[in-house]
Amino acid sequence: MSPSGVRRQWEVVPSDIAQKTHNPLRNVVENLRLEPNPEKSMIALSIGDPTVFGNLKPPVEVIEAMQESLLSIRYNGYAPSTGCGAVQWVFLRPGPRHYCAREPRAEHPGSKARLPTLPHSRGKSRNSRQILQSQERGWEVDTMHLEQQIDASTAALVVSNPSNPCGSVYSRQHLRDILQVARAKFVPVIADEIYEHMVFPGQTFHPLASVSDDVPILACSGITKRFLVPGWRMGWITIHDRHGIFETAGVRAGLQRLSQRILGSNTLVQGALASIFTRTPEKFFQDTIMTLQCHANIAYDMLKGAKGLTPLMPKGAMYMMVGINMAEFPDFASELNFVEQMVTEESVFCLPSKCFDYTNYMRLVLTVPEEQLREACHRITAFCKRYHRPEDADSHKGNTDVVETCTSNCSAALRESRDLIVPKDASISP
Amino acid sequence: MSPSGVRRQWEVVPSDIAQKTHNPLRNVVENLRLEPNPEKSMIALSIGDPTVFGNLKPPVEVIEAMQESLLSIRYNGYAPSTGCGAVQWVFLRPGPRHYCAREPRAEHPGSKARLPTLPHSRGKSRNSRQILQSQERGWEVDTMHLEQQIDASTAALVVSNPSNPCGSVYSRQHLRDILQVARAKFVPVIADEIYEHMVFPGQTFHPLASVSDDVPILACSGITKRFLVPGWRMGWITIHDRHGIFETAGVRAGLQRLSQRILGSNTLVQGALASIFTRTPEKFFQDTIMTLQCHANIAYDMLKGAKGLTPLMPKGAMYMMVGINMAEFPDFASELNFVEQMVTEESVFCLPSKCFDYTNYMRLVLTVPEEQLREACHRITAFCKRYHRPEDADSHKGNTDVVETCTSNCSAALRESRDLIVPKDASISP
Repeated sequence: MSPSGVRRQWEVVPSDIAQKTHNPLRNVVENLRLEPNPEKSMIALSIGDPTVFGNLKPPVEVIEAMQESLLSIRYNGYAPSTGCGAVQWVFLRPGPRHYCAREPRAEHPGSKARLPTLPHSRGKSRNSRQILQSQERGWEVDTMHLEQQIDASTAALVVSNPSNPCGSVYSRQHLRDILQVARAKFVPVIADEIYEHMVFPGQTFHPLASVSDDVPILACSGITKRFLVPGWRMGWITIHDRHGIFETAGVRAGLQRLSQRILGSNTLVQGALASIFTRTPEKFFQDTIMTLQCHANIAYDMLKGAKGLTPLMPKGAMYMMVGINMAEFPDFASELNFVEQMVTEESVFCLPSKCFDYTNYMRLVLTVPEEQLREACHRITAFCKRYHRPEDADSHKGNTDVVETCTSNCSAALRESRDLIVPKDASISP
Repeated sequence: MSPSGVRRQWEVVPSDIAQKTHNPLRNVVENLRLEPNPEKSMIALSIGDPTVFGNLKPPVEVIEAMQESLLSIRYNGYAPSTGCGAVQWVFLRPGPRHYCAREPRAEHPGSKARLPTLPHSRGKSRNSRQILQSQERGWEVDTMHLEQQIDASTAALVVSNPSNPCGSVYSRQHLRDILQVARAKFVPVIADEIYEHMVFPGQTFHPLASVSDDVPILACSGITKRFLVPGWRMGWITIHDRHGIFETAGVRAGLQRLSQRILGSNTLVQGALASIFTRTPEKFFQDTIMTLQCHANIAYDMLKGAKGLTPLMPKGAMYMMVGINMAEFPDFASELNFVEQMVTEESVFCLPSKCFDYTNYMRLVLTVPEEQLREACHRITAFCKRYHRPEDADSHKGNTDVVETCTSNCSAALRESRDLIVPKDASISP
């Protein structure tokens, strides 16, 4: 640009938001140049999409509900930005147990929950802090460390439970401990609960909002995982705000404006939502969970024998984290090289933990058909055997490392709400 | 926040983006408190949604295509962020006529167009300039004024054609004139062409990119209006970039990142898209346009007799602008009060031009059933007769006013791309 303000050539520059938007998982998956071994069929254990192998299908009732919505010719127009139909507002009972079941049948007077919402990755240079977690204590948060990390710039605490990629399901007491920190430091909480219904038998999921009666909580969920239809893009944010802190601050109004920003929710799915909730038989969910747990057991049993690997048994969600003792694989500079080479030789792709700002792990999805999962585990074991150089066998034990508790779950609503709250006095650079 | 950085109370504040997001049309429509006359049925001529009255339905072929997509159980998973299926990339012929027909049959080697995209309203305090238009010259842009308004902070020129709310369809020569300004000033163009297929007989729509062979253009369209399914949320941006200006600047990469930010496109619609394009018979489109033109004629003939009103015959899209000579309606401070009172007394709601940052007009949608349109026009005429106070009858003539050429079309893709380009040296406050 010349001093006079007259351009003498093209000087197009993408906007700040376009340049800074960063979806680490998608970036890795879509941009990695991986060349599988042409002599071996590719097995992708990388993407958290339960539908890709065709073995896990949505319930017949859900397809029927969508078909009815489509054929009714009633859901083709614009919907209100905050959702439409029987499930537009779900009312919560104002009482000690204020967990919102979210199904249309659970309507009570009280505070409101909004749906649907849609995903937003982080487009801003907002910082997130990594909190110590102990892999041995089921990936529990180090609440002392959490407390230390909170300062004037802390906008919200994000709690992913059940967790992707860790598969952890926190106890009621641990959730209480986390909330105690939030309460003492006056930090609102965003609960990423997209896997709320994917919990293995014997484990109990506690909605975060059922554990607190004062901390303001935005809880995020959706039909994505539970009904095995991630591509349909339907999620929601539940506002738990018994003392009107979000309301007074204008958070509800802010969420409404963000909804108007996108208007992105497909109305056919909105039209089918009530039926999707009410008609799907319990057995469908049980079958899904049994499949996931069965696959977790298979992968765990097979990989615990692999040299240099430490599989961790999940309690929920649909992933297994497998520790890689990099000291015993001197051929690879990082777990990134490890998984790349495994694709080159074995045509098995596991997601490197780099996608989650974490090192020395890979994440396997448990939704692949059993036969492919077994074949993949065989190949992984063979690959490890080939590259394993025994060192101090204890070097991988007692691994307590730094991990952010929150970056991983791809919950639509989570990411939407991440953009939402900033502390009063934080200076946000564009 | 205390000096020590320890909060002593809740201090939650919505984020900048949540506070600044502003969708004027939705804000007016969803938040207006309008109380219709209980003795008259409500006729809403306000919302640009062709489906609300049930008289305009999508083609049977489109419903069938969606049904096949649904029953195939192939489109439930995550899609690539830039779209999927046969229409993921539409290739453009590199030649003098590089208009992209966008249908899968129109595949040629050359530059690429991406779909789908989803809407983003403006969330930033980015300024838009209003450019003089002449209502008498079919809302043509005053290119002299346009040239004067371009300065160092101008990121892009947005051209809405055919236009919502004006119904204008620009001549090839006028588009050339606009592009000449863009070329001389080195300002890229965003072409909002969501109504490209809604043009009345005798009029010709010229895709902006078919008029230029050098100005970089992002053209936005979608299936929303053409197939009468706005709630399905499917649109796209076509990158016309024959000299690689967008490519070099990283605009394509920026668009890809924005796609990853949202991943919001419903995969069932993506799965049906190829069939939607190829199977819908030409007669469907002709019928829609004939209905719109017929309704435009009815409204024009009826309202040209109404006191104080000046209906303007559209050339395309699905709206009619009606000028209100406010000087002849002294009971109302603005056209906003005018339309509100018309709801109170006549149960007819027309969108005030305030929604488009414009004054003294109201916008009627032409998609209502004929009987209701006639009834609405009768009531509007009666309302005007009741409040009309004849003044200088010429005061409304020769109205040339300030209007932004671009704010109005609710094109999904348009708003997405608005966030995208900023000049190299513009300082963007958050």
